[in-house]
Amino acid sequence: MLDLSSRLAIVTTPRTPYLMLDRSVASANIARLRERIAGLGVRLRPHLKTTKSVDVARLVVGDVPGPITVSTLAEAFAFADAGYTDILYAVGIAPAKLPDVYALQARDVRLTVLLDSVAQAEAVAGSAPALIEIDCDGHRGGVLPGDPLLLDIAAALGAPAGVLVHAGESYHARSIPELEAAAENERAVAVEAATRLRAAGHECPIVSVGSTPTAHFARDLTGVTEVRAGNYVLFDLVMAGLGVCTPADIAAAVVVTVIGHNPGKGWIMTDGGWMATSRDRGTAAQPVDQGYGLVTALDGTIFPDLLMVDASQEHGTLALREGSAEKLPDLPVGTPLRILPNHACATTAQHDGYHVRDTPGGELTAYWPRVRGW
Amino acid sequence: MLDLSSRLAIVTTPRTPYLMLDRSVASANIARLRERIAGLGVRLRPHLKTTKSVDVARLVVGDVPGPITVSTLAEAFAFADAGYTDILYAVGIAPAKLPDVYALQARDVRLTVLLDSVAQAEAVAGSAPALIEIDCDGHRGGVLPGDPLLLDIAAALGAPAGVLVHAGESYHARSIPELEAAAENERAVAVEAATRLRAAGHECPIVSVGSTPTAHFARDLTGVTEVRAGNYVLFDLVMAGLGVCTPADIAAAVVVTVIGHNPGKGWIMTDGGWMATSRDRGTAAQPVDQGYGLVTALDGTIFPDLLMVDASQEHGTLALREGSAEKLPDLPVGTPLRILPNHACATTAQHDGYHVRDTPGGELTAYWPRVRGW
Repeated sequence: MLDLSSRLAIVTTPRTPYLMLDRSVASANIARLRERIAGLGVRLRPHLKTTKSVDVARLVVGDVPGPITVSTLAEAFAFADAGYTDILYAVGIAPAKLPDVYALQARDVRLTVLLDSVAQAEAVAGSAPALIEIDCDGHRGGVLPGDPLLLDIAAALGAPAGVLVHAGESYHARSIPELEAAAENERAVAVEAATRLRAAGHECPIVSVGSTPTAHFARDLTGVTEVRAGNYVLFDLVMAGLGVCTPADIAAAVVVTVIGHNPGKGWIMTDGGWMATSRDRGTAAQPVDQGYGLVTALDGTIFPDLLMVDASQEHGTLALREGSAEKLPDLPVGTPLRILPNHACATTAQHDGYHVRDTPGGELTAYWPRVRGW
Repeated sequence: MLDLSSRLAIVTTPRTPYLMLDRSVASANIARLRERIAGLGVRLRPHLKTTKSVDVARLVVGDVPGPITVSTLAEAFAFADAGYTDILYAVGIAPAKLPDVYALQARDVRLTVLLDSVAQAEAVAGSAPALIEIDCDGHRGGVLPGDPLLLDIAAALGAPAGVLVHAGESYHARSIPELEAAAENERAVAVEAATRLRAAGHECPIVSVGSTPTAHFARDLTGVTEVRAGNYVLFDLVMAGLGVCTPADIAAAVVVTVIGHNPGKGWIMTDGGWMATSRDRGTAAQPVDQGYGLVTALDGTIFPDLLMVDASQEHGTLALREGSAEKLPDLPVGTPLRILPNHACATTAQHDGYHVRDTPGGELTAYWPRVRGW
């Protein structure tokens, strides 16, 4: 049974599993992309779908609200409440969501919507600024830049606000040259679509491109007016596998506690399962599969080859990577550990907020809530 | 632009994606297992980790709180607030969590903890009722019933409350006989461990077994005192793939809206991505892979061979199953659809609560919040 002082020490820290954010690491990531995009002469419109936090947004944007991108109307309302007035809602608009768009506009928010069909354009026409989604790599939605449909949508809108491209396939690149090529393709397709619209008499003021990989590897953004990226604030093992960052740049991790061992199988059990990490296994499709995540000490030191190899709802199984020559570290019951995420967007979404420390190894200094739901 | 009456109709329904619960379907699932377990002469201790809702618990347990199982202390506190006083916390206890266990006991909650090491037993000894976790299939944690460690843990505890077994490998069964064998193995291992403890002079009053598959296929539970199961309230495509239920028994689904089409690829795009469904792809390991889920109309009618085949954060891609002879249904922009989950525990956890209707096809009648966090 624990003595009183142990009990008191414990109640001042959150119960594991919890989400930890290293503020200095995030700030360095933010500064890196800000300088890069400024050097290319383009505006950054950060995508806040990864971090979903007004407090993190302040690190990204600064104290004066600027242009942002969101993935849900819940985010749009939360950031409008925090004073943001230039918001791009970058998911194809369902007509049933227009009343919420109008409600935001009535609060003097310029909420720009996204669409890729005549049906959507007819529902939106004249009532909200709208970007036309252009398909650059067959990844998801969007109109091909040469498709006659592009001009039909523009005509239905009357005055399209511009075009938007997202190089979703860049997440599957295998080399830096492939990432550079994905970035140039994203730019070229966006500019091609804008040029066609302008030739047809539309002003098309906005040419919006972006993904975290392409934002970090674009060499030229001629013709582009703004870049969107969001994951880069936190980064993750998928981005490290792509070569966009290193594991040391990963700013958010799940803190778990050792709750048992299976020496015969070389397993260390923790109290953090997929409920805490998400089921995302993005690195499974990469050359180096990181399981459910790399394991670090609380101060950020990586245990070589130690992975979270399996997960049930509230249990994690840690083991050495198959074929590793390392020795399983001695981590007694009660040891706190950090699990670096495969995919920051998915892992952070499993948590209601961030327990923040200023620097790796420091004490927790703040709690920053996340926006939930839709 | 939408007319006023369309706007009014829309604001009375939730924004998609949202989580929908069919109460009558859940109630039928609940009645089925309740009758089955009663017929085997054993007490049911439902696991509320799947549904995480005081309102759903009322369907499961009735108006008078009874014995329950939880997977987090956040659930334990929420159900204690709702009047539950007999709670099993079925994740290996981290000593740092004991102050919360004591806080619950101070509120006259009998909170039983779980452990499988001497270190945990020494931390808990005498301060809380504790079950010893027994390993029946090498799935996760637990002590083998014949391991000398079992008696060491019991000695450290002084008076173990009993043993607990979870047949986690039953989720990978391939036939009804395999499920029946997994249930009998779970029972036999639990009874073997209890018998050893009793031979060593421990009373061992509780012999707890359970998983949704084994609970539905156990033919005899001699020696068992209680059965835990949770998923069965909602069921999902993994359980349907195992033969434990049919797709019509699945009580919770994600409602999404069509936002676009890619006729060239045979894709229908929706506003429900992995943020709404989770990344869980449990059926990928089964003979029939259901993608991110089967697609139904709002009234529950399944569109033959139509799957959610891909997901990004807030986009779902629907397409016909590979090799299907079906024709892609005509589903215009704005059509609401339901996605049946691979794994109810994971999908429901992406949502803050359930939008409830009494019967499939009926109107929404209630909103039931879920317990979040740890």
